[in-house]
Amino acid sequence: MANEEQFRRVDPAKLERLVTGIYAGLGVPPDDAALLAKALVDADLRGVHSHGCRYVSTYTRGIREGRTNVHPEIRTIRDDGPICLLDGDGGLGHILAVRAMQVAIGKAKEHGVGVVSLRNSQHIGALAYYSQMAADAGCLGYVTTNAGIVMIPPGGREKVVGLNPLSWAAPTPRPWTFNLDMATSVVAGSKLNMAAERGEKIPLGWAVDPDGNPTDDPRLGMQGGLLPLGGPKGYGLSVMLDIMAGVLSGGRFGKGLGSKGSAQFFQAIDIEHFMPLSEFKDRMEQLIEQIKSSALAPGSPGIFFPGELEYNLKQERLAHGVPLDAFVRSELKREAEAAGLSYDIEV
Amino acid sequence: MANEEQFRRVDPAKLERLVTGIYAGLGVPPDDAALLAKALVDADLRGVHSHGCRYVSTYTRGIREGRTNVHPEIRTIRDDGPICLLDGDGGLGHILAVRAMQVAIGKAKEHGVGVVSLRNSQHIGALAYYSQMAADAGCLGYVTTNAGIVMIPPGGREKVVGLNPLSWAAPTPRPWTFNLDMATSVVAGSKLNMAAERGEKIPLGWAVDPDGNPTDDPRLGMQGGLLPLGGPKGYGLSVMLDIMAGVLSGGRFGKGLGSKGSAQFFQAIDIEHFMPLSEFKDRMEQLIEQIKSSALAPGSPGIFFPGELEYNLKQERLAHGVPLDAFVRSELKREAEAAGLSYDIEV
Repeated sequence: MANEEQFRRVDPAKLERLVTGIYAGLGVPPDDAALLAKALVDADLRGVHSHGCRYVSTYTRGIREGRTNVHPEIRTIRDDGPICLLDGDGGLGHILAVRAMQVAIGKAKEHGVGVVSLRNSQHIGALAYYSQMAADAGCLGYVTTNAGIVMIPPGGREKVVGLNPLSWAAPTPRPWTFNLDMATSVVAGSKLNMAAERGEKIPLGWAVDPDGNPTDDPRLGMQGGLLPLGGPKGYGLSVMLDIMAGVLSGGRFGKGLGSKGSAQFFQAIDIEHFMPLSEFKDRMEQLIEQIKSSALAPGSPGIFFPGELEYNLKQERLAHGVPLDAFVRSELKREAEAAGLSYDIEV
Repeated sequence: MANEEQFRRVDPAKLERLVTGIYAGLGVPPDDAALLAKALVDADLRGVHSHGCRYVSTYTRGIREGRTNVHPEIRTIRDDGPICLLDGDGGLGHILAVRAMQVAIGKAKEHGVGVVSLRNSQHIGALAYYSQMAADAGCLGYVTTNAGIVMIPPGGREKVVGLNPLSWAAPTPRPWTFNLDMATSVVAGSKLNMAAERGEKIPLGWAVDPDGNPTDDPRLGMQGGLLPLGGPKGYGLSVMLDIMAGVLSGGRFGKGLGSKGSAQFFQAIDIEHFMPLSEFKDRMEQLIEQIKSSALAPGSPGIFFPGELEYNLKQERLAHGVPLDAFVRSELKREAEAAGLSYDIEV
């Protein structure tokens, strides 16, 4: 019962229009507002609620408080064959990231590989959205960003490492795209936020309290810090991703070093520069079939690939609506009211 | 006492000469034999015994049994600006990998980024050796390979996923290089082999037995299969690395699909194409200092970076010798005898 109260389904097209309207009302150019709304709703459709419309009011706050530039002049600092360095001028992260990945894909089509470093950017939401663009264009897509400093390094007890995620995507002949999007912590920080909002506990092993002890309280865990995936491995990966995104770009890196905001790294590798795309997809199908047809664990519903369950969820939700929780719905209502828009999106 | 019997220190220079002689005696060109010996001894010096001289007899067996081509004709299948596709003609993996990374670095210096896909290769040992080459040349280095099929996918109970590792390296102003080299399983398979050779148990959570149950017996774990790091994350990473190394190269991928041997992917990004290397190193120093100076956990000896402890170990071992265990020493004695060489390497 609590669960039914908690979640209600909304119409994804209406949701996208509402979110577009909210940002357009704050002065975001209509095309940019539509793009941001599309990316946020896509995350909810794919079940990645941690990076979906629960961020709407975070970004509106950034605009209202002047931290986000809704009319950025994106500057090309370096542009040399397959590589490019962009300065995002503090714009909305999603808009900058789409632009950067478009540049990477264009370079990959011309040179075989495209690398784009982006600084003075902000939060770009779910990385899968951008790696997917590359896969849709027949490329291997890769993206990483530096993120909030909420992780504890092995041997430490202070939050000094970013929760830096990465995403890799590859085309398949299946309806879904191979798309891995993962944080380098045991879980993404947003999962602690959501648990806190819903009054739920978290499993031990996700986070520690401020004294460094294991905790099942998401609020204490947010105060203390998140644990890296597999200890030194997740820690090492996370620092490397900050080196790629933050250190290399000339933007913000580490805990407030260098600059403000976030920085990202985008890469596309054009498959046709190595083999015909159809041959690549045939090979992907062989790999998928081999793994899927292997013996299942007792009670297992099957073996799935990164991006597959997200795709399946998206199809179901396009048909039947996206469940949004009470917190997100109330934030959207508040934003709709502020923008003078009707909140009439529930199915 | 058992431990002293188990390990004895050997002189690294003598060890390198012995290993060079063993391979030269099997028809490997002297320069290639020296390079292979250098890479294997480097792994032992850095404490990565799982990929050091314990592999000497694995590779000699490959040569004697005709699976390894000691005079490969490396073919350039595609060479287009920053990208390159090489066919290794079944040569020794280390030799091919060094060549491939040299090509990637050359392309990075010219174009900003270099990507080299290598097929018909074999086991290349510790990846850190190649990513280090790129970092030494002022680049971000990246390398991945597909590997033995010993991992269980989430939801499955059959070994159908490779234990595919990755390495990323970046220059620092410190004596050590940032160098992350990690398998996508909870631990590398060689750690189970070593535990079995030494008659030791393994922690629960590393592997499952053939029925899919947790086990602390390394032999049962090798039969059953290794578990991926963080479940879906390690599994997704591992499959992606096979897509980059195996599927994209046109070589072997999955469990015996496509071709034989192994396939790899090498990438170098030239830092000077983004900013002066000295500026990059300054930024790295700030990042290192920030993390190292953060609060320590009770009893912690400090916070370390990937590659740092390996560098420290190497300095100590260059001075005092490399400890090799009884299994590796007996294999080396056997190989020395077969090659008509003196085994006189212990300090």
